[in-house]
Amino acid sequence: MSFFHLVAGKPLATSEERAEHIGPISGIPVFGLDALSSAAYGPEAALTLLIPLGMAGIAHIVPISFAIIALLAIVFFSYRQTIEAYPNGGGSYTVASENLGETAGLLAAAALMIDYILNAAVGISAGVEALVSAFPSLLPHTLAFCLGILAILTLINMRGTKDTGIAFLIPTYMFIGTLLFVLGLGAFRVIASHGHPIPVIAPPRLPIATSMLSLWLLAKVFSSGCAAMTGVEAVSNGVAAFREPTQRNAKKTLTIIIVLLMVLLGGIALLCRAYSIGATDPTSAGYQSVLSQLLAAVIGRGWFYYIGSASILLVLALSANTSYADFPRLTRAIAMHDYLPHVFKIRGRRLLYSHGIVALVGFTAALLIAFGGITDRLIPLFAIGAFLAFTLSQAGMVIHWKNQTGPGRHYRMIVNGIGAVATGITLLVVLVAKFASGAWIVAILIPLLMFLMIGIKRHYKGVETATATDCPIRVDNLASPLVIVPLDRWSRITEKGLRFAMKLSDHVEAVHVDAEECRNEVDAMWNRNVAAPLAQAGREVPKLVFVPSPYRFVLMPLVDHIFQIEREHPDRQIAVLVPELVVKHWWQAPLHNQRAQLLKLLLLLRGNQRIMVINIPWYL
Amino acid sequence: MSFFHLVAGKPLATSEERAEHIGPISGIPVFGLDALSSAAYGPEAALTLLIPLGMAGIAHIVPISFAIIALLAIVFFSYRQTIEAYPNGGGSYTVASENLGETAGLLAAAALMIDYILNAAVGISAGVEALVSAFPSLLPHTLAFCLGILAILTLINMRGTKDTGIAFLIPTYMFIGTLLFVLGLGAFRVIASHGHPIPVIAPPRLPIATSMLSLWLLAKVFSSGCAAMTGVEAVSNGVAAFREPTQRNAKKTLTIIIVLLMVLLGGIALLCRAYSIGATDPTSAGYQSVLSQLLAAVIGRGWFYYIGSASILLVLALSANTSYADFPRLTRAIAMHDYLPHVFKIRGRRLLYSHGIVALVGFTAALLIAFGGITDRLIPLFAIGAFLAFTLSQAGMVIHWKNQTGPGRHYRMIVNGIGAVATGITLLVVLVAKFASGAWIVAILIPLLMFLMIGIKRHYKGVETATATDCPIRVDNLASPLVIVPLDRWSRITEKGLRFAMKLSDHVEAVHVDAEECRNEVDAMWNRNVAAPLAQAGREVPKLVFVPSPYRFVLMPLVDHIFQIEREHPDRQIAVLVPELVVKHWWQAPLHNQRAQLLKLLLLLRGNQRIMVINIPWYL
Repeated sequence: MSFFHLVAGKPLATSEERAEHIGPISGIPVFGLDALSSAAYGPEAALTLLIPLGMAGIAHIVPISFAIIALLAIVFFSYRQTIEAYPNGGGSYTVASENLGETAGLLAAAALMIDYILNAAVGISAGVEALVSAFPSLLPHTLAFCLGILAILTLINMRGTKDTGIAFLIPTYMFIGTLLFVLGLGAFRVIASHGHPIPVIAPPRLPIATSMLSLWLLAKVFSSGCAAMTGVEAVSNGVAAFREPTQRNAKKTLTIIIVLLMVLLGGIALLCRAYSIGATDPTSAGYQSVLSQLLAAVIGRGWFYYIGSASILLVLALSANTSYADFPRLTRAIAMHDYLPHVFKIRGRRLLYSHGIVALVGFTAALLIAFGGITDRLIPLFAIGAFLAFTLSQAGMVIHWKNQTGPGRHYRMIVNGIGAVATGITLLVVLVAKFASGAWIVAILIPLLMFLMIGIKRHYKGVETATATDCPIRVDNLASPLVIVPLDRWSRITEKGLRFAMKLSDHVEAVHVDAEECRNEVDAMWNRNVAAPLAQAGREVPKLVFVPSPYRFVLMPLVDHIFQIEREHPDRQIAVLVPELVVKHWWQAPLHNQRAQLLKLLLLLRGNQRIMVINIPWYL
Repeated sequence: MSFFHLVAGKPLATSEERAEHIGPISGIPVFGLDALSSAAYGPEAALTLLIPLGMAGIAHIVPISFAIIALLAIVFFSYRQTIEAYPNGGGSYTVASENLGETAGLLAAAALMIDYILNAAVGISAGVEALVSAFPSLLPHTLAFCLGILAILTLINMRGTKDTGIAFLIPTYMFIGTLLFVLGLGAFRVIASHGHPIPVIAPPRLPIATSMLSLWLLAKVFSSGCAAMTGVEAVSNGVAAFREPTQRNAKKTLTIIIVLLMVLLGGIALLCRAYSIGATDPTSAGYQSVLSQLLAAVIGRGWFYYIGSASILLVLALSANTSYADFPRLTRAIAMHDYLPHVFKIRGRRLLYSHGIVALVGFTAALLIAFGGITDRLIPLFAIGAFLAFTLSQAGMVIHWKNQTGPGRHYRMIVNGIGAVATGITLLVVLVAKFASGAWIVAILIPLLMFLMIGIKRHYKGVETATATDCPIRVDNLASPLVIVPLDRWSRITEKGLRFAMKLSDHVEAVHVDAEECRNEVDAMWNRNVAAPLAQAGREVPKLVFVPSPYRFVLMPLVDHIFQIEREHPDRQIAVLVPELVVKHWWQAPLHNQRAQLLKLLLLLRGNQRIMVINIPWYL
């Protein structure tokens, strides 16, 4: 197992779990990564839709970016209040189900699940786009790089969150630092050149305009740009992770994150206009990301460019990591309410809800493959889930304040109300503007997921009703069960099984399926090794039964015989002993126990309430 | 399960198994398909290598085909004698291991396994080539068609051999009929035109010669053509399937098959020369199989052409079926001698050795994918296994006769000896001629497989030694075990488990992991439902133990507690009761029992000889 340990980390003992309480400095990488990295693909997504307008299109990025920044400000004030109201963390699922009822909670749950999966897919694909912008020859391998990064992230995460925390700090601050530096330098050049800076490396020439500006196009551009807002709810989810004073630290962190995001979005928009940087077609060979063009224009393709690109790639890939941390927590919370399989509640060997991670990785890989690892195709699916969750969360907060007493609740209701209305309207705009280009997938998936969750809950409820009882234990008929021991040749395993059967019950029956016609030998073995010594010790000798098998089958006659015994003893329980060999190395496993497994399966499938299986392990 | 039944067939009861005894009429399709279908790809494989010689190359196909026919005659007389000596079926593995020792047997086993896999791959890929010759637009989808046919064959075979027998008859005789008709008509036209027939549809013009004839080239052409001889050992394998007089019927069938194969090979060679038909590059767009060209040249591309092509496709696909019948039987025979995992001995729900089929399909699919479904690339790997098996089988027969007494044994030794020498020399020629173009893969795989088989045998022997004992059963310390019942809330499942535990032992301990801090409730429940009624009935009340779980884990504290109990009672066995919910529909399975499975796994991995698991099924 040592190779597995090396890769997946040693299993953690329970006592190693403790909350690491953090302040704003490490809070920004942990909770802000997702939000800040959106600055890398949000403006790009908006600019891509402006390509058909040619040169004239770029000017529109500035008002649209500032509209998004204004929306961001509204959301900021809303979430500050959520932090105050839910010191243990107020995710959209919690807030919506507590204040708006179960259906709203499920709606938020479905939206969030989809959103986390999309976040992982978009983070990775946008990171790979930063990579292929720096090294254009890698473009044909986009999907392979996406899946590779997904695999690496999964490995890191399967080792546990403790190890991942440190990996965040440096790239996040490098990303913020390089971008702020480039934006600052660019702004200085723009001012120094009176608004007409000369790019160090000119961005690709913009295509000739092929269409005109329309309100519809602007709505679509705004909708795509809203992808930049995803991830801002992370802090309010994780309030409990901050150190005392918890809520003040959380709010401080949220403020820094949002202000930084606003500066990045505004700066990128202004510089794009000043340097005439537009998006390029991500499927064509000349593709270069907007940030890559911006870096090259301001500072050239020197070492700084490559450091900047590397930090963008890293931060985007790591922003996918938010999903690894939050998706399993979300599925666990939903499973706690019986809306998802209970397996999502089980923590794995590294204190992780590993089934959640497996589900996340599976869906993300499927998304990446289906959309070829191209961010631009994923964006239309993206913002819906986030804005649906925003809206439900803010609307839930309105009800929350309504049910509170005390001063200032009306003011707070209004703040959250403005947030709910603003994000709600945005949600509608995004849904309509992006419906045809992919949002319909999400619009179908969300109700499907909700139906699935309701079905799961109904199943669990049904099982609970079927097995619930208030009756005390019945005290009649506590006779020991009939124990059946399949017998082949005499071995230490057979001896152990037979002894254990005799410990359990006075009614032991050894069964030999006579597939090889060696009845006499088995008889002799039985007399020598079992019957004689037991009789000598004055103990009851178990019955030995031969089951004929004209066709040399072993399992079927055995199972038939067990069911015959079961029919002959309608008042007793039957226990079937199944020895199982435990091998030293995993690769020896295929050599053993398949017959035992098949016997267990057959008994389970054809079985009834009265037949039990007892596993006798034998360690080599 | 009904959809599964529809696809996979109902499970067969044991009594439905019986040997279907057959005569020559149905023996030819069943045992001759593999051999006869080789006529479709053997000549083609030889002609492909003659492409560089251009027009001049085609003439060489005639002497090479007749050399192969002569070899076929030698092998024929050899195998007649094997049928006489092994009335229960003398496969190469049996004959070699019985007469030449285990190592030779393993060599034959490895060769045969590889050969069966290659036979399936080549049959399918050659069939698909017949298809794309008829419909050239399908060429880019060659691999997809190969995998599709593999899937269909697997489905048919998973339904059981009984259903497949009938499917063989019609296409086999259609194949023989159409080919004999075309060869006859072609021969007539050749004679009528004094050796210069005019093709109905002219075959593609042959390329200009780019190389000269060499002995080396001839050796390679001969080696490729030898692929036509694969499959002739089938009758001697399956003698037992024939009806009385068994051996005479088997020999009659073998004779018909070999004579038919000789006629087909000779006829194809002669007509190819007369019509100037050569092979075409299977990877180029203008590809057309040799048989397709021959059909078109003799009879045109009318309905007969399409019927002929269809029968070729069917027969080749069905010839892959031989592997489905024989590979699992072979792996079973090897597993009987402990050289392969015992799982290959288990018969499945339709009386098949289904694990063998799964292995065959997996490897065949891998081969088809690796070689792009192109027959020509697979051929160099093909003949080695077959000729190695021929040689070992004939050499084994020589020893067999040597150990016999009675008249005629010297004559028989000589016949088999000639067979062994002839096939042995061919094997060497094939190995040398084809080494660089793929035979090296087989030359590496065979010893690897042998090592693997020897390793498996050693492991089984080791386990047997480790568990073997001659000591009779120990009669001391037969006190009932300590039974541990994990307890959550009170339900009918809990009641059943607790009752069963009390039936098994007087020492029952219920364990509640207090992850949710509801100790008082559990205590009250226990008193009300268990302690009070049992005390009233004058029965011993099981112990209730609370295990604290500060981190809200459930499994780990439970497992730790079980091991603590195990340490505290070094003289007793511990049985852990694990309730398992059996759901009505397979898709409900992911909703249950994962915690139970994990508990079992943890106990097994960390466990020891004294901890047993008792499964209590609960049927909904």
